[in-house]
Order: sequence, then C-alpha cells, then structure tokens
Amino acid sequence: MTFEERARELVSKMTLAEKMSQMKYNADPIERLGIPGYSWWHEALHGVQRSGSATVFPQSIGMAASFDDELLQEIGSAVGDEARAKYNEFKKFGHLEIHEGLNVYAPNINIVRDPRWGRGQETYGEDPYLTGRMGTAYVKGLQGDGKYHKIDATLKHYAVHSGPEAKRHSFDAKVSEKDLYETYLWAFKYCIDHAKPAAVMGAYNKINGEPACASPTYLKDILRNELGFEGYVVSDCGAVCYLHKHHKVTENDAESAALAVNNGCDLNCGDGYKWLKTAYALGMIDEDVITESVVKLFTARFRLGMFDDDCEYDHIPFDVIECEKHRALNRKMAQESMVLLKNNGILPLKKEIKTIAVIGPNADSLAALQGTYYGEPSVYTTLLRGIQEGSDAKVIYTSAFSVETGQPLYWNDHVYRPALVAANKADVVVLCMGLSRNLEGEAGDEYNNEWSGDKPTLELPEHQRKLIKRIVETGKPVVFVNVSGSCVNLSYEKEHCDAIIQCFYPGAEGGNALADILFGKVSPSGRLPVTFYESVEDLPDFEDYSMENRTYKFFKGTPVYEFGYGLTYSKIKEEWLDENTVKVTNTGNFDTAYSVLKFEYIPHKNLCGFKKVFLKQGESQTITFGKDE
Amino acid sequence: MTFEERARELVSKMTLAEKMSQMKYNADPIERLGIPGYSWWHEALHGVQRSGSATVFPQSIGMAASFDDELLQEIGSAVGDEARAKYNEFKKFGHLEIHEGLNVYAPNINIVRDPRWGRGQETYGEDPYLTGRMGTAYVKGLQGDGKYHKIDATLKHYAVHSGPEAKRHSFDAKVSEKDLYETYLWAFKYCIDHAKPAAVMGAYNKINGEPACASPTYLKDILRNELGFEGYVVSDCGAVCYLHKHHKVTENDAESAALAVNNGCDLNCGDGYKWLKTAYALGMIDEDVITESVVKLFTARFRLGMFDDDCEYDHIPFDVIECEKHRALNRKMAQESMVLLKNNGILPLKKEIKTIAVIGPNADSLAALQGTYYGEPSVYTTLLRGIQEGSDAKVIYTSAFSVETGQPLYWNDHVYRPALVAANKADVVVLCMGLSRNLEGEAGDEYNNEWSGDKPTLELPEHQRKLIKRIVETGKPVVFVNVSGSCVNLSYEKEHCDAIIQCFYPGAEGGNALADILFGKVSPSGRLPVTFYESVEDLPDFEDYSMENRTYKFFKGTPVYEFGYGLTYSKIKEEWLDENTVKVTNTGNFDTAYSVLKFEYIPHKNLCGFKKVFLKQGESQTITFGKDE
Repeated sequence: MTFEERARELVSKMTLAEKMSQMKYNADPIERLGIPGYSWWHEALHGVQRSGSATVFPQSIGMAASFDDELLQEIGSAVGDEARAKYNEFKKFGHLEIHEGLNVYAPNINIVRDPRWGRGQETYGEDPYLTGRMGTAYVKGLQGDGKYHKIDATLKHYAVHSGPEAKRHSFDAKVSEKDLYETYLWAFKYCIDHAKPAAVMGAYNKINGEPACASPTYLKDILRNELGFEGYVVSDCGAVCYLHKHHKVTENDAESAALAVNNGCDLNCGDGYKWLKTAYALGMIDEDVITESVVKLFTARFRLGMFDDDCEYDHIPFDVIECEKHRALNRKMAQESMVLLKNNGILPLKKEIKTIAVIGPNADSLAALQGTYYGEPSVYTTLLRGIQEGSDAKVIYTSAFSVETGQPLYWNDHVYRPALVAANKADVVVLCMGLSRNLEGEAGDEYNNEWSGDKPTLELPEHQRKLIKRIVETGKPVVFVNVSGSCVNLSYEKEHCDAIIQCFYPGAEGGNALADILFGKVSPSGRLPVTFYESVEDLPDFEDYSMENRTYKFFKGTPVYEFGYGLTYSKIKEEWLDENTVKVTNTGNFDTAYSVLKFEYIPHKNLCGFKKVFLKQGESQTITFGKDE
Repeated sequence: MTFEERARELVSKMTLAEKMSQMKYNADPIERLGIPGYSWWHEALHGVQRSGSATVFPQSIGMAASFDDELLQEIGSAVGDEARAKYNEFKKFGHLEIHEGLNVYAPNINIVRDPRWGRGQETYGEDPYLTGRMGTAYVKGLQGDGKYHKIDATLKHYAVHSGPEAKRHSFDAKVSEKDLYETYLWAFKYCIDHAKPAAVMGAYNKINGEPACASPTYLKDILRNELGFEGYVVSDCGAVCYLHKHHKVTENDAESAALAVNNGCDLNCGDGYKWLKTAYALGMIDEDVITESVVKLFTARFRLGMFDDDCEYDHIPFDVIECEKHRALNRKMAQESMVLLKNNGILPLKKEIKTIAVIGPNADSLAALQGTYYGEPSVYTTLLRGIQEGSDAKVIYTSAFSVETGQPLYWNDHVYRPALVAANKADVVVLCMGLSRNLEGEAGDEYNNEWSGDKPTLELPEHQRKLIKRIVETGKPVVFVNVSGSCVNLSYEKEHCDAIIQCFYPGAEGGNALADILFGKVSPSGRLPVTFYESVEDLPDFEDYSMENRTYKFFKGTPVYEFGYGLTYSKIKEEWLDENTVKVTNTGNFDTAYSVLKFEYIPHKNLCGFKKVFLKQGESQTITFGKDE
C-alpha cells in the first residue's frame, strides 16, 4: 500500500470530530487508533531551533551568498539529521510537543523585493532563480531521498510576501501577472518541480484582494492546478483567525475556518480550526473536504515513518547533534558566505601585524552569529574570539556600544573614546558593526528595539556612523566587517575603509570563518544575493509590490554594490566558449573557491545558471551549464 | 609644600564662580590656571567599568566569600593599575570625560541587612568586621602606598543604606544608636582608620529623618568629628536634587544645593550644584564653605599627581589591562570565592564520567559572570565553556530558559524536555541556575525585568524550581551551581541535589574556576558572607532597619546555611590553643586553602578575626590573631 492508501484507510476509521482534531497544529492523540499526539509546529531555518542545542548554520541570506547549493543540500541533510535525532528522543515522552516533530517551517523562499524588509535575512535574496536553486537544495537535504521523508520541508510564505511587517496581517499585496509569475511564484514553481516539498505555508497577506491562506485563486487554481503542488498546505501562525480579525473578509471564527479549509488550507498553525465543528454544524463545510485534508496530513505522517518500525532515520543517534562533521560543514559554509566587497590589498592581514583593535557591538555577540529564527549552539566562536584565536597578534577589544541592544552605553564624548584609544594602539582596526535582530527582524519579536521589524532607511545607526568616521580619521587601516541580513548603505565605508567584508549572520563558526578569511587561511568566495543600494530614496515606496525599479533586474539607479558582486584573494579569468560553456582559470596567487554566474538578457539581466568551483593557483575548469543550472 | 598647601594656593587664585564650577562631578576646565576639565564620575566596583575592556573580577559579594583580604588588596591594586593605564590614554584628549578619571565610586561597604536587597551583591556581606577588613583591603589596593594616590577610593553609601530600591530616593531609615554604631557605621569607621579612603559618598536615603547627603548629624558630627574622616564627600548621583524632589526637606534647587554644601557635601554627582550661584546670591552660603570644599577636592587632585610630572603611575602601560597576571589573580579569586555548600562525595567529579549535561540560563551567560556594576572583558570563560574546556567528557548543553531574560523560551511541556533529554543522556547533571542582574540589581537598571531591583522572596523563579524537580526525578546525580549575589532558598536543593556550589557572579574567569573545582584541580575554600535563610517569612519587614532577628548575629530562626559556612574537599582540624591562637591541620586527602574564622560572644556571636591559609595534606599552621584580624 502507498502512504496515501494507508492514510486513507486510517482516516476512514476516524469520526468527523477526530478528523477535525488532526487539522490543528497541535493534533490530538487518538488512542483507540494508536495515533499519538503530534505538534506540526517546528522551525529549522538554518539549524534546528528551540529544542536544545543544535548546530547553528549561517542565516539563510548568507548561505545564499555562497552560491553553493551542493553544500546547502549537505547542510539541509545535517539539519534534518539533528531534527531527527531530537525527535527520536522526544517521542519517548509519548506524545510530541511543539518543536519536537518531523516537519519544519522552512525554507523561506520569498523574494527580497525591498531592502527595508526585516525578514529578508530569512530568504535566499532577491533573485528567483538563486532562490529556487537554494530552496530546492535545502528541501532535498531536509527531506532526503529514502523510502521515508527524513524531515518534511515547508515552502513559505506563499505568496507575494515581503513586508511591511507592521501591516502584514491585513496587507493587500497588489501585483501584476508578470511580476507574479516572473518574480513571486517562480521559486515556488522551481522548488515544487525539483524537490517535491511536503508542505507550503500560506502567507499572512492578501494577494490582489484574496487572503493567501484562504484564496481560491492562489491556493486552488494556481498552487494546486498550475504549479502541481501535491502536499499539504499550512496556514501561517494565527492567519486563519486574522481572516476576520484583520483582513475582515469573514465575519467570525467559523467563517474563517470554513473559508480556509474550503480553499485548500489543510492545516492550521494557530487556533482557528477549533471552529471547524461549528462551521460544519452551520453547513459551511462538507466532511469530504475535511477528509481530503486529513488524508494529506496522514500521508505525510506515514511518509515520515511515524507509524512504521523500519524507518532508517529512527537510528540517527543523539551524538549527531553538533558533531565534528556538522561543525566542519558549518565553518565551510560560513567561509563561503562572506562577501569581500573591497580590498585595497590589506587583506589577508600580514603576519607582521602585532596589534589588532576589534571594535563594535557585533564583535563579541552570539546574536550577531545567529540572526533570527536561531537555534542555540553549545559551542560557538564570536567574531572577536575567532580573531583572538586565529592569530598571535594582541587584540584590543571594545564593544563601543551595548552588545545586547546596540545602543551607546555611555555619555558625552566618552562614548567614542575607548574605541579611539584602541584604534590608536593598533596596527589595524577591525570594525564589527552593522545591524542585529534588534534592528531587523520579524514583527512581534521580543528583541526588536527602535526599528521593530523593518528598517526605515539603509543607514547604519547614527552612533555607528559617527564612530566609523572618527576611527577612519585616526588614519589607521580599517577593515569594515558588516553584520547584517540586508543591504545597508556602505558608500562611506566603500570610500574610506581599506577593506569591507559583508558577513551576514554567519552562524556558530562565524568567528572562525572570519579569522580564516582575515588571516588568509581561505579566500573569500561569497557573492551578494541582494543589491546593495545607497538609499531608499532611489527605490519605490515600500508598500509598492511592482518590481519596477527593484533588484538588479529592474533597478534604474547605481547601486553601491551590485547583485553578484564579491571579490576573492585571487584573480579569476572567465572565458565563455559558447553560450553554455565557460572556462574559468585561477590566474592569481591564491587558491580560491569561485562561483561562476551565468546571466541572460531577456531583455533585462537575468541569472540563469551558477556553479561553484574550487581552483588552485593556475588551475582551470570548464563548466557546461545545462538547462537548470 | 603639602598637597593641601598647593591646593589652597591654587584655589586662592580662583574666582567664586570658578570654585563653584569645580564642585560639579563634571568639573569645568580653568584654562587660565592650567586646570583641565575633569569628571569625578567613574566606577570600578570589581574591575574598571565603562571605559573599554578590563579585567572583570568576581562581584564583591563573591570576593567577600574568599575571606582573603590579602588577595583582595592585590586585586584592588590591579584594578587601580588598569584604571590608571586607561587614564594615561584618556588624558591625551585634553580633558577628562565621565569614566576616565582617577577616582572611583567603590567600594560599597553597606551591610546586607536583608536578603531582598538587590544591591547586596555589591557589598561584602552582612558582617561589619568582614566588610571593614575587605573594604580596607580594596581601598588600600586602589590607593596604593606611594607618594601619590594611584586611584581615589570612595566608601559608599554613607550610611544606613540597604533598600528598598524602589523607595530609596525618599526613604527614611530609622535606626537605633546601637545598630547605627555596631552595624551601620562600623565598617566605615574601620576603613577610615585603616585605609584613609579619599572619599565618602552620601546615600540617597534619610537617616532618622536627615537626608544623608545633607545631614548635620551624620556628615558633620559623626563622619568628620567622630569618625575622623578627612577626605571629600560626594553626593550619590542626583541626590542633591532629590532633597526637594523626593525628600521634600527643601523647597527648591538652590536650597538643596545650600543644604548639602553647608553640611559638608563637597562634590555633587548630578546637576544640583549648578544652583550654587543662586544659593550664594540669596545669601544661603558663604564663600568660605565653598573654598574649603574646593580645597579638599584639589588636595585630592594634587595627591593623584594630576599636576605633577613625577607621578610613578603615569608610566603604567596600556598592556597591563587584562594582562596574564591579572587573569591569574582573577582565576585565583574566583576559585576562592565559590562556596561548596553540599557534597555527598560526588565532587570532585570522577575521571570516569563520560557525559555531562550542563543545563540552565546561567551556564553560557556573560552576565552571569558579571553581576552588576560590571566591566567588559575581552576574554572570558562562561561556566559552560569552562566545563567544556576543563574536561574530556562530552558536554550536552541547554539553557532551558532564555539566557538573556531567564524566562521560559517555549511552550507547554516542551519548556522542560530538552533539559530532560540532556539529563537522561548524561552521567551527571550540572545545573547552572540562580538569579541574574535581571532579577536582582539597582533601581533603574535597564535590564531589570520582573523583580526590578529587589526580590520579593528568596525563591528561585518558579520555572527553575519546576525544572530542578524534574531533573532530580530522573535519578541522575545533580550538582547544583547557584549563581546569585544574595541568599536564595536552597532547602530543596540541600535535600535533593548531590552537591551545591554557590558561585555568586564569579567574573571573567568564572568558568575556569568552576571547572577547577568540579574537576578537582583546586579545593573550594569560600565561606558564606551572608546567612542563607529559608524564607522572608522568618525575617522582619524589609523596611525595618532594626537588626533584631537579622544576620547570623541576631537571627532567631534556623538558616538553611549559616554565615561562614563552606566546605572544602579536605578535612581541617582547628585546635584553639588559647583565645587568640589556633593550630589548623589539614587531616584530609586534598590540598586546600582554608579560612580560619575567629568568633567572639558579646553575648551574640560576632566575627572578630579571620585568616586564610593554604594547607597541603597533613600540613599544620599555627595562627595568632592580633587585635585587628
């Protein structure tokens, strides 16, 4: 029997009430049928979250910068192993609680339409093709290729979802057919075709007037029929209740539940589906609709091996969590995720350097490694510690501003002085500045401070800008390390600093990876997955979902750093032998990884292939792009 | 010429307005006299604060637990060196800003009258004699014994100051003559006699109706005349304005400034003394009073060598900050500060232990090392990292609750499960629980959360208690590491855990020191500087300043652990040969430090001497107590 047949048989034994109880994220046990309670809410965007320590990989936007989907697939598999290992322990408690299960709400394959969006860091950037490739890799890694799914991946947030955070629960994203298919749905289609994700999560917002979690057009006509999605749909958390609370397309809870389930939302993250009984009693839904959703959910549970004793993943040991292999994968990804934006020759730092000043609130911050949707590592290396351990130089450190909040700690001119003293004592200054999850993140995150989710401008906080200027004025060489999950205006740093490394939120091995790059153990090889603009003044209104004048494809201005930009310590020569064949040669003096990007012009510039290779000095490789690379 | 003579000569050249401008904490420059601007506000309670990285020693309450005043004096000297090294850089800016100067507002020698007080951690505990000895050591260390003062120490808060925090700006501490002299003033007298502290800070509160910062009885009659204090008095920060704002003993700013300065408050931390001119114009103060205060302040500045070029401390190099010697001192103090409260033989942990579960929000927390009034270390070892690096055992870690807030991170039963899984996988569980500066601290601290300053009860947070119980129920051996700066009710842990270590806030080397103890590299030797009560129900009202039924001297109940309690890994035999002579012998199987405590009965039990010695196995030492030890 197929998983679906087994699911159908089991579901046929359930009462209507029992079936309805399986469509809440916190599904009840049905003891008479041997079904344990199960929570469908778990997170693993870049490592397993919220269930004890786990390997924390770089935030997704950083992994996108690696342009290394093979490595990302390995990471997805590692994350899946860690989630499985935890499940294997948690299931001993008898029923599964939140953050213990086998399905996760990842990856986030939304498009970074606008750099102000606080959740851009969760995604693979602004390009649908890159997003499709990276999303596919992560889904494949999580789900595995065995008889059973290792972990169910969930593509989110379907669809046309990219802020503003403050309005997301009622926002109506207005989008043209062209942008819809070319930008917003493209990666969903690509991932569905290439990775068969188990689940899709509906977004909070409306799309052209229809709430995404209950939309006949977008869930039924497009997702099911056009895109051919066969898995289960889950609502974003709370979204079903928001149909009447915020979108006001329904009058009450029962109508909301009915609207969602009738349009193909099989599972509810939130409390909306406790009203299914009422909706049924009022004649708003048929049992058949319920049955089909529950069959989808149990097909998934059977496919995850929950009801079998021959699942290969039942034997993944607890020791796999944060194992050496995962730490090595993590360090490699962190190395590949960092983007060298400027280098006047100061990098890699010379062995002669005796004293390094490390300055900034992101230098010794675990949060700066984690970004949002983060797990808890038991072993990690902050940027500061990486620099300390990676070199024999003396390190003089000051956070300058609060590590926890990013805000100035002191008064008057003294705010800046400890940093200036450190700089004056040093041969080189490494500024670890940028943003944090206090300054860019998701609406409602407890740690948001002044900006709360989205950021109003692309500028670094004013006190950081003041300090950077004063450090530059000391005349000391400055390496600017920008920690952020989105574009910030780096115009000043581009002009005045000796080197710039964009390191995103680089995960638990971030400090080691940064040191590997600073001290020349590896060459950087990341490339920007988003355009680095100068100002929001150059962009359309944040609420405008047209792609006109957005992203490298359509932006009419001059970016500070363009999509795909990124230096290595070597020189790479690309010779295109034909449209699909390129010979790349390392003509410089440094072994390096390198991502070859293939663009087409249709007529706008459009990424249509990439391949990461490793080239020793003098080495050549010839790459032939197929249709899907 | 003496420093005072030079001060008097310089002050004689000042106009009245210039003199008044020197009595604000942010003293103006007087360029025509070659006097640079100077800020009298700096902090160094257990390491230099707020001026770039510095060695962070254990919080004061922990250092008190060492009963090692010789070591504390070395630490005071090290802190003084670091403050001086920073000053030597900051003075190059021309004028000194806040947190850059040569006088610090430390030590805090208030008495822990009540365990609810959030600032008890800043002090040396509940015993005046211990406080006097430790305060003396710290002052001597800071000030040095040279021609110049290395750093000016400030005894605070004079006097009768120990909460409640929420009411401190208007509180009237009512105190008997007996308690005043025997308890509240005793350590001030001792330190003034033995260490000649440069400064005393007036408290926020009233004492028997008189605001401490403007009290004729307590500042003039007692501090100057009875206790013989010859230095300068500084107000607590903002306290002068609070005379009318909160205490309502004056009508306006001018009256407040006049009342304070006329009663001997020479220096104002805050903005109150900008009204001195008005007060003078209104005839409320005489120029002579101003002159005498300013002479005191400039005597201090001369004595600090600010106007000389032969000051030995001008050559303390920047490299002294966080140098190896200071780190070694710090680790030694951290080792000595930890108090072993229970050990059923599990400690030191056996080499056979393969897997250790480390659980709790204080395990991987920098804040747990720092406590309040903290500096920023550039190198530190959390409790978790110390355990990881101190042993070859596999470590499974989970914070269980938020490291930042201490609050539960998750939902439902899942809150506890990752910790239970970790425990079940381990041979031994090390619980790193307790409080934090979120739960005990100073009124107005930004990081206070639910308890805000003082704590309402002696209980650990409820979610911690639940988790501890569930961990104990796993049957695994449990070492309970309590991080706190005050007594918490450890009754349950005393009954159910295999070992308890009270580690206070152990400073930057805290993790190394804990590992040294857990793995038997050193024997613990700390002794409690405060009584560990079971419940506030056993104590008088928090606002009652009578010592009746408080501290080991007068408490009528049975404490969970008494003042002075603390085990070693060895056995020590004390043989009192006469009233002042004791032979101590290490009869056990472990080399250990040990603090001999000498009590008298007058008729209540009263500490009147202590001496820390190091005894190898089998070694004896004979100690003779003099009058002041």
